Amino acid sequence: MEIQIPLVVSAVAGGAEHSKIPLVMLLVFGSAKLLAEVCQRVKQPGLVGEILAGIILGPSVLGWVAPDEMITTLAELGVMFLLFRVGLEIKASELLQVGITATLVATLGVLLPFALGWGILVWWGGSSIEALFVGAAMVATSVGITARVLATQGVLQARASRVILAAAVIDDVLGLLILAVVSSAAQRSINILGLVATAVFAIGFTLGVAFWGTKTVGRVVARAEDHLHLAEGQFVLALCLLFGLALLAVYAGVAAIIGAFLAGITVAESVTHRVHELTQGVTELLVPFFLVGIGLHFDVAAFATPSTLVLAVVILLAAILSKLLGCALGAVRLGRADALRIGIGMVPRGEVGMVVAQIGLGLAVIPQGVFAVVVFMSIMTTLIAPPLLNWAYRDVEAATTTWHAQAKPRPEKGPKFRD
Amino acid sequence: MEIQIPLVVSAVAGGAEHSKIPLVMLLVFGSAKLLAEVCQRVKQPGLVGEILAGIILGPSVLGWVAPDEMITTLAELGVMFLLFRVGLEIKASELLQVGITATLVATLGVLLPFALGWGILVWWGGSSIEALFVGAAMVATSVGITARVLATQGVLQARASRVILAAAVIDDVLGLLILAVVSSAAQRSINILGLVATAVFAIGFTLGVAFWGTKTVGRVVARAEDHLHLAEGQFVLALCLLFGLALLAVYAGVAAIIGAFLAGITVAESVTHRVHELTQGVTELLVPFFLVGIGLHFDVAAFATPSTLVLAVVILLAAILSKLLGCALGAVRLGRADALRIGIGMVPRGEVGMVVAQIGLGLAVIPQGVFAVVVFMSIMTTLIAPPLLNWAYRDVEAATTTWHAQAKPRPEKGPKFRD
Repeated sequence: MEIQIPLVVSAVAGGAEHSKIPLVMLLVFGSAKLLAEVCQRVKQPGLVGEILAGIILGPSVLGWVAPDEMITTLAELGVMFLLFRVGLEIKASELLQVGITATLVATLGVLLPFALGWGILVWWGGSSIEALFVGAAMVATSVGITARVLATQGVLQARASRVILAAAVIDDVLGLLILAVVSSAAQRSINILGLVATAVFAIGFTLGVAFWGTKTVGRVVARAEDHLHLAEGQFVLALCLLFGLALLAVYAGVAAIIGAFLAGITVAESVTHRVHELTQGVTELLVPFFLVGIGLHFDVAAFATPSTLVLAVVILLAAILSKLLGCALGAVRLGRADALRIGIGMVPRGEVGMVVAQIGLGLAVIPQGVFAVVVFMSIMTTLIAPPLLNWAYRDVEAATTTWHAQAKPRPEKGPKFRD
Repeated sequence: MEIQIPLVVSAVAGGAEHSKIPLVMLLVFGSAKLLAEVCQRVKQPGLVGEILAGIILGPSVLGWVAPDEMITTLAELGVMFLLFRVGLEIKASELLQVGITATLVATLGVLLPFALGWGILVWWGGSSIEALFVGAAMVATSVGITARVLATQGVLQARASRVILAAAVIDDVLGLLILAVVSSAAQRSINILGLVATAVFAIGFTLGVAFWGTKTVGRVVARAEDHLHLAEGQFVLALCLLFGLALLAVYAGVAAIIGAFLAGITVAESVTHRVHELTQGVTELLVPFFLVGIGLHFDVAAFATPSTLVLAVVILLAAILSKLLGCALGAVRLGRADALRIGIGMVPRGEVGMVVAQIGLGLAVIPQGVFAVVVFMSIMTTLIAPPLLNWAYRDVEAATTTWHAQAKPRPEKGPKFRD
């Protein structure tokens, strides 16, 4: 008769299986927040720590967590809620006001990185299709990263921030079209009519929701509490809208997060404070999975050859400079300070650049080494931009938003409900 | 040149893959809330509608959603957050006060169902090991279901409710021990020392946290905002405690939700109102996945033979009566009204009964037909108890908790942060 407590217990309760969810939650959420705390103590943005947590948990250092279906699901939900939460702070009219500048910023911020990425790969000796894919990956902008930094600083409503958000939406549509052309080229079947239809569909969806959705839908959601018997009726309707528009966005060919962002804008003026707080709870829980998920893709082992390492450094520098210059040039009429903020804000490639690289890998048109280079570029731009953004916004006064008001709340003992 | 917009788009953006998460979210969350609204309009508990949504989406009716890893993850997180949320409304001292009654309720509520389930299976002609497994499955109590109903009605602090919650925790420990004995018997290797060790471990963990955890840990969490640079420091620490205790609970051999419940109790008196609200957001989002997940396991096709159907009805009646009588008997000294409330409150077997059946299926000691019977019993007790519970609690006055206060909030325009 032996004593094997943990084994007995595991066998009986299906321990290994049952421990997975709390274990992964504790590891990912706990380490992300621990490193965020460390970063904030040295006056760096917390989200840099959360991405670093992913790098440490991932294959390069500990190898404890893999980006499996659980992590991926929570990460995708996390970035959807993040963009929804950001949308809640923005009025549609505020975005449309800066439409022309944003279009200019997005266009130049797409052309320069694409051209430079393509050129570097041709110089390096890559095939023309490899060059096109790297160019397409350089185009991407991860609005989630920048939005998180701006929201935490309480400067979402500043003019430069509104230009960044609007430009990021346009950037996503343009990036989609470039990816469509490049993918078609890779498969040697360019369908011009199909591409035009995709473009019309994506642009029509975005503008349609932005212009037309706010009033009608907002009114319905606002009156939810009068007509529904459900508890938290406004929150429930807002979430249905979030998932519904995210789905439509995917069908229209743009990213789910664009739909989530539009859903947030749509209900921004009609929901109560409570909906902001309930959404904030979900966002705080899930966003670390999005950030750790980015870090998990970092793999030093992929830089096997010195030639790949050189390419990685060159591509990284090109990615930073081309986006910064292109976007700043587009916003130059707003003055040097705002142009710089906008340029820096568009630099992070985050998960979007990685998705492009993954499609290229899936179509077998880019080799593993080039894939690693693009992932490296995506992660490094995402780590470098937030501290620069903090610095560029140092003079902008923080507005009082639900987010910022709570960024450092006073330790108050809330009303106790059982007393 | 053909026009195939959706296909072009799908191929480019990986449509099918990218649409999965928003599609499942919309289907599960949207249909759950739609049917909850319908149920509440006819004065039935909303969660009955949410379980029905699972039955409709599942194999018996539409077959649109399967309980895959995404649903399972969100469901398990949902029930963990639900129990954590319930714990936040309870003081440890309030549970310990009713300890003796709760122990009596749990013990009688375990013995009667076990004996009856075992007896029926022997009468029906099942093997002795089948009979033991069905008995073990009849023992389970799904505290999540009852807690949700009580919380929505605002009667979590009533004496009967506190007895139910405490008894459910003890029930889980006793159920674990019975499952351990039955599983060992199935594998013909009863390890008495191991079982004793498991028992000591599980009971020690539960009592240790309940008695000792509150003061020290509560104090640390309460002072989070003073010492952390992180935003939402209290919420972050509370979640780390939630995941940590859930993990320890699994290692100690009890269910993760017991750890989550203890975590809630531990910080109940030390966190601010804001932590309640942030947790509420996560709970509202995820609990529908827990409830729909239960419904998804309902499969009419499994009742192939009339003999199985008869067994299902007999087992269902036995499950209701044995639990109701056993638990009411244990609480008889509290008076007839409270004894009835407690009896009804312990009836739902929910996901716990299904887990026992799944282990039996995994060990190949119960056939598919008996498995279907246990699943049927688990779901039907879960559907029947909530309306009865509403009725039994009709005279209990609702307290003002964070939950109940918001169950039907006035439509107020909250402060607008951009104005």
